[in-house]
Amino acid sequence: MKNKLTIIKVGGGILNERKLFEIFLENYSKIKGLKLLIHGGGVIASSYMIRLGIPVKMNKGRRITDSNTLDIAVMTYAGLINKNIVSILQKFNCNAIGLCGADANLITSKIREIKEIDYGLVGDIISVNDNFINQLLKLKISPIICSLTHNGYGQLLNTNADSIASEISIKLSKNYDVTLKYCFDKPGVLIDKNDNLSLKKTISKTDYKQLVNNKIISDGMVPKIENCFYALENGVNNVFIGDHDIIKTTDDCSKIIL
Amino acid sequence: MKNKLTIIKVGGGILNERKLFEIFLENYSKIKGLKLLIHGGGVIASSYMIRLGIPVKMNKGRRITDSNTLDIAVMTYAGLINKNIVSILQKFNCNAIGLCGADANLITSKIREIKEIDYGLVGDIISVNDNFINQLLKLKISPIICSLTHNGYGQLLNTNADSIASEISIKLSKNYDVTLKYCFDKPGVLIDKNDNLSLKKTISKTDYKQLVNNKIISDGMVPKIENCFYALENGVNNVFIGDHDIIKTTDDCSKIIL
Repeated sequence: MKNKLTIIKVGGGILNERKLFEIFLENYSKIKGLKLLIHGGGVIASSYMIRLGIPVKMNKGRRITDSNTLDIAVMTYAGLINKNIVSILQKFNCNAIGLCGADANLITSKIREIKEIDYGLVGDIISVNDNFINQLLKLKISPIICSLTHNGYGQLLNTNADSIASEISIKLSKNYDVTLKYCFDKPGVLIDKNDNLSLKKTISKTDYKQLVNNKIISDGMVPKIENCFYALENGVNNVFIGDHDIIKTTDDCSKIIL
Repeated sequence: MKNKLTIIKVGGGILNERKLFEIFLENYSKIKGLKLLIHGGGVIASSYMIRLGIPVKMNKGRRITDSNTLDIAVMTYAGLINKNIVSILQKFNCNAIGLCGADANLITSKIREIKEIDYGLVGDIISVNDNFINQLLKLKISPIICSLTHNGYGQLLNTNADSIASEISIKLSKNYDVTLKYCFDKPGVLIDKNDNLSLKKTISKTDYKQLVNNKIISDGMVPKIENCFYALENGVNNVFIGDHDIIKTTDDCSKIIL
């Protein structure tokens, strides 16, 4: 029987609210068994960019990353956010280590091809080196991975955190029984976006197609849910999507099923 | 017989000059056997502080660190500098991992006591956890450690990189034959600070006392050289101080001897 591994992807406003985020991390530290956290930090990156007079450019919710933007992403994701997460987790007796995709050659990627939009220094994942993650998990060290990868030729690349979460989960599902939880600002998929009580608790592929047709799932939620199906179709055991309470219980969130 | 381990501390202007620094890192990648790099990044931190309108406060070359200053130190040391070092080393086929003292609980420290000066969020080292460093070295992964530690209670602390270098070197000298090289902007201790040919190639404790009395060693060089003696007196095999060429050869630098 495989060991259980919980993989959490955290994003959204919670990273920016120190007290809420500390509670989140305390709950993370209480997850039984092996665990791994993936985070972005776009809101904090944008706030530093504005302070530094660097233009924030987005296309359909994805950041266009020139070299100044990448510097700020590296500073905030791999520095400010990642190391504060690690030091707070140490306080809660969770031995954590903060990493980006260049560390120990964890995640290699290639620069995104220019089609309609030139996203700049954005990487699409080529491979995940699970050996080192396995070593860390054996040592009871929890990896905290930020949304940066590298191309192997000295270039760091900004990479979507949801994609990192699904690719790492798939790779680790070879050796572990993986539960992947995407944690964002809403309790899950809402039939009425203004009513948390309209939460859809399970979403199959058939449901998904209907929800897209009815425009209930749209914009940034589309790639998010597609990442969930992609993970399930490639070996991940369970995938949930919900708000920060998802870390304690999956009673009030959306479970994605094939 | 113990395995050899080379520990390099790099600081000063070289961090700020991409081309020179790449050559330095290529030379680092060519060091035979086990190796570990420690770096600061004060110049780059200060430049971002100025751009963000955060006052830069120093006392005798040491940074007074309020919470805004710490954020910038974390962003630049653990983010921008550390991750660029790692991605460049990966290009040179040196499998590196970037860490701060909170990662894997590597270096714990306590906030510096307030005497004449309140240095703020500055940490004095309490302990180095060599177990994890040993694991990394066994896996042929080179640790790249920035000058930040943590207090174990959720607080990151700014910590002198020279002190981190000496404490890590001492701790690892239990298991390794350690050579420690401090790399800065000058070729070593100069009798005439304007003449690189006046380099003093060996410095014993007796030499050191004379050089301090004659004011040839002063200011920031005093704690630097004292760190060297401290390391030698506590198990480190060899200590050198010089410019960035020290990484290739110790022919033109100062060797500190007991």
